[in-house]
Amino acid sequence: MKVYITDVGPRDGFQIEPAPVSTAIKVETINRLAEAGVPSIESTSFVHPRYVPQMADAEEVMATIRRQDSTQYAVLVPNLRGAERALKTRPDQLNLVVSASESHNRANLKRSTFETLAGFQPVVELAQKHGVRVIGGIATSFGCPFEGGVPAERVLDVIARYLSLGVSGVVMADTTGMANPQQVRRLVSTVRERHPDLEIHLHFHNTRGMGLANVYAAYLEGVNHFDASIGGIGGCPFAPGATGNIDTVDTVHMFHEMGVETGIDLDALIVLAQDLQTELGHDLPSQVMRAGKTSDLHPLPADI
Amino acid sequence: MKVYITDVGPRDGFQIEPAPVSTAIKVETINRLAEAGVPSIESTSFVHPRYVPQMADAEEVMATIRRQDSTQYAVLVPNLRGAERALKTRPDQLNLVVSASESHNRANLKRSTFETLAGFQPVVELAQKHGVRVIGGIATSFGCPFEGGVPAERVLDVIARYLSLGVSGVVMADTTGMANPQQVRRLVSTVRERHPDLEIHLHFHNTRGMGLANVYAAYLEGVNHFDASIGGIGGCPFAPGATGNIDTVDTVHMFHEMGVETGIDLDALIVLAQDLQTELGHDLPSQVMRAGKTSDLHPLPADI
Repeated sequence: MKVYITDVGPRDGFQIEPAPVSTAIKVETINRLAEAGVPSIESTSFVHPRYVPQMADAEEVMATIRRQDSTQYAVLVPNLRGAERALKTRPDQLNLVVSASESHNRANLKRSTFETLAGFQPVVELAQKHGVRVIGGIATSFGCPFEGGVPAERVLDVIARYLSLGVSGVVMADTTGMANPQQVRRLVSTVRERHPDLEIHLHFHNTRGMGLANVYAAYLEGVNHFDASIGGIGGCPFAPGATGNIDTVDTVHMFHEMGVETGIDLDALIVLAQDLQTELGHDLPSQVMRAGKTSDLHPLPADI
Repeated sequence: MKVYITDVGPRDGFQIEPAPVSTAIKVETINRLAEAGVPSIESTSFVHPRYVPQMADAEEVMATIRRQDSTQYAVLVPNLRGAERALKTRPDQLNLVVSASESHNRANLKRSTFETLAGFQPVVELAQKHGVRVIGGIATSFGCPFEGGVPAERVLDVIARYLSLGVSGVVMADTTGMANPQQVRRLVSTVRERHPDLEIHLHFHNTRGMGLANVYAAYLEGVNHFDASIGGIGGCPFAPGATGNIDTVDTVHMFHEMGVETGIDLDALIVLAQDLQTELGHDLPSQVMRAGKTSDLHPLPADI
């Protein structure tokens, strides 16, 4: 079973960088991800710059990147206004996001989960008019930092609403790294039972070290769409210094080691992550970037 | 299925610390691990101080720790001389180690794998006379940094030799973090087929981010003895700055989140890891130490 990686670094990673990231670095990162064969890139976000100043150059990023036929360029949109801006930039996909837990949704979007979902109806309709597919993101699918556990029924309700709007698939996100492998298998299998043909994407954070364990658990359940962030750029708003998104390099490396195809040039990704670490000026959590691939052998000591 | 953790930090972690670690810190670490309910601690190593100066205080450590009945105090011994020294300090267990790959064994021990194993015969006999159990460690079980892949047959041959010597169990070690989850399941299932009643311990490094994925994979195969290192202390001789042993805190946290008992007080471990980070004066890789447990909820923002 081939695995499809969406690199969310240009959006989920850069948006939390403390210092401004230049448009040139964003564009170069997206171009090099695409050249390395990453099949899907969440390239930017059309939120209002007042809320996320780091994404104020969304139009410029989308106008400047060199597009590859083999890569889908997705963008995050929060509402109809964002979708209108986004669709002028010719994205391949719009990503929506709502939180499964009420308090997390209210904290981020000042309204209830189902009010937010209702507001997505004109967004999906507009995207469909433009022939652009839409993926429905579900934050806090595996736990909420305010409420704790999130019932599977709640996630199923959000999925049902998204499907009634006409999305092409969903991303269940472990927004603050609360998922564990057994829970991942349970939730995936519950969702699959209800919706056997649903395109399920999973978005894990490595906040508590379980990122790749969760990826592996989901793969065992037949999931083959994963979000990851180049170099592991990004973080966690609740724990300064803690790790955020799982790293694309480490994720691709694990799949290749297991003999699973991704279509991605891992060596190119490693160099990209190293360059990005230099450009951003702080350590990135990627492990393979630091240690090399399993297949990188070492010379024998001279004295044996 | 309950899981039994051996904390190897006092040996595998401290021995690679660049600055000398005081006997007091070693003793305090061991005592606090035992008080937190860690069932087994690799407490020190009786190698010659010329090779590992950091372990020169092995006798003093063993004489000074406050022993708990609920904890097994294991020590590493390289040979008969080390075992003689070790057995005077009343350990509960001797740990041996040989590399499955010839070149790694020669690089470390200047002799062949099976010469090394033959040399263990008087060690096991002496331990048996003292009523002390012996566990046979197998470095590079999942790959060798010089040779690459290590055939399962080679690991099986080493296990057979260990069993003929009379060990009580084996530790298959992923010495430089080369294992992937599918490989772990394959090797464990191959070994189990040959030796259904063998006590299998696994020792993983997180060098390439797959540490907990490998633990989870092994757990799915029925393994319930894992080595880990408090705070993730330790490193990788081949990649300065790369991560070494999996962290005990993150490992215990994952099992508790999955509803698997370890008998360990996780909160006590977190405080211990934080204190150790302060004492050692550099960042430790533990993720849960930084981010908190999944169950540590956050207050709602005031404005929602």
